[in-house]
Amino acid sequence: MPLKLYLAGPEVFLPNAREILDAKAAMTRSYGFEPICPGDISIEPAPTLHEFGLKISAVDEGMMNAADGVIANLTPFRGIAADPGTAFELGYMCAQGKLVAAYTNIADNHYARTADFYHGEVREAQDGRKRGPDGMSLENFDMIENLMLHGGVERRGGPIAIHNAAIDGLYTDLTAFEQCLKALQKQTHQNKPASI
Amino acid sequence: MPLKLYLAGPEVFLPNAREILDAKAAMTRSYGFEPICPGDISIEPAPTLHEFGLKISAVDEGMMNAADGVIANLTPFRGIAADPGTAFELGYMCAQGKLVAAYTNIADNHYARTADFYHGEVREAQDGRKRGPDGMSLENFDMIENLMLHGGVERRGGPIAIHNAAIDGLYTDLTAFEQCLKALQKQTHQNKPASI
Repeated sequence: MPLKLYLAGPEVFLPNAREILDAKAAMTRSYGFEPICPGDISIEPAPTLHEFGLKISAVDEGMMNAADGVIANLTPFRGIAADPGTAFELGYMCAQGKLVAAYTNIADNHYARTADFYHGEVREAQDGRKRGPDGMSLENFDMIENLMLHGGVERRGGPIAIHNAAIDGLYTDLTAFEQCLKALQKQTHQNKPASI
Repeated sequence: MPLKLYLAGPEVFLPNAREILDAKAAMTRSYGFEPICPGDISIEPAPTLHEFGLKISAVDEGMMNAADGVIANLTPFRGIAADPGTAFELGYMCAQGKLVAAYTNIADNHYARTADFYHGEVREAQDGRKRGPDGMSLENFDMIENLMLHGGVERRGGPIAIHNAAIDGLYTDLTAFEQCLKALQKQTHQNKPASI
């Protein structure tokens, strides 16, 4: 039985979401894993948009419960940080003690992106912490995201892949995604299917 | 034994983080719960910033493992979305089947904030989804955040409190936080300590 990997990331919002998810699924299979993608199951209608949203939440949690691990696409989305849905899902899978992997298609780390958010106006405060003009401190741990996400993966021995994708391939470039698959394959001694 | 609540949120980044966390902790105790805050334990030094970050991740996960529930402050932070660390922590606690609650100090819901991000340039695409100029779809489920976060709390019967705080009280106004405490107290039949 191949291990099942839940493929978390903001590509569900893309205009060609199905195409990208299919490409990720095919690549996942080529490394001997079984992919589980949000959007794989068609969700029956609900009386309100709100109730429909709750149904999607239930289905996606069910997929995570059925999965053996997750590859989380933490590429910043609509701002300087990872999609919060993906962050939630990574935390969910870390708590279940499952296989975890993460990648980003932006090479600037969390600190660099946050400093950019402040247009570089970052100063060391009296308490020794780097702070923006609003007084808020910046995490400076050479991590791709907030320490709970990066640390949650790294402390579990999971791969963290970083790739500097072209701007028009930010959510479609699968280089770093494939690095995660390679690392997880090595880690779990998963065999490629004989047909590939 | 009072139930222990982990207090997740971006106030750890505030210049007066300790003061706000102490105020949240005191309010938590006044509702009969025992507060656990990131920052409560002093973390020993590490050879590198990166390793220090990993230590904080380990300590914070340990606190969550010891807690019976979480109140997550999902007030948008450095952009239109919740702090990704807090999103991770909410997912972590949902997966453990613990008590969950969330609040925001910005009344605009997830859809409204995302539409603002696109300066209102949102159109219904051929597939019936609302999309921004970049083609990315918007979630329109009348939720305070991405459906995994809001749905994860609501589906577990947890309270979701919304308060329109003044801009200078965005990360310090505890009105919605207190609403979560009240709801959790009712839900768990927790008694106020006799001394209060």
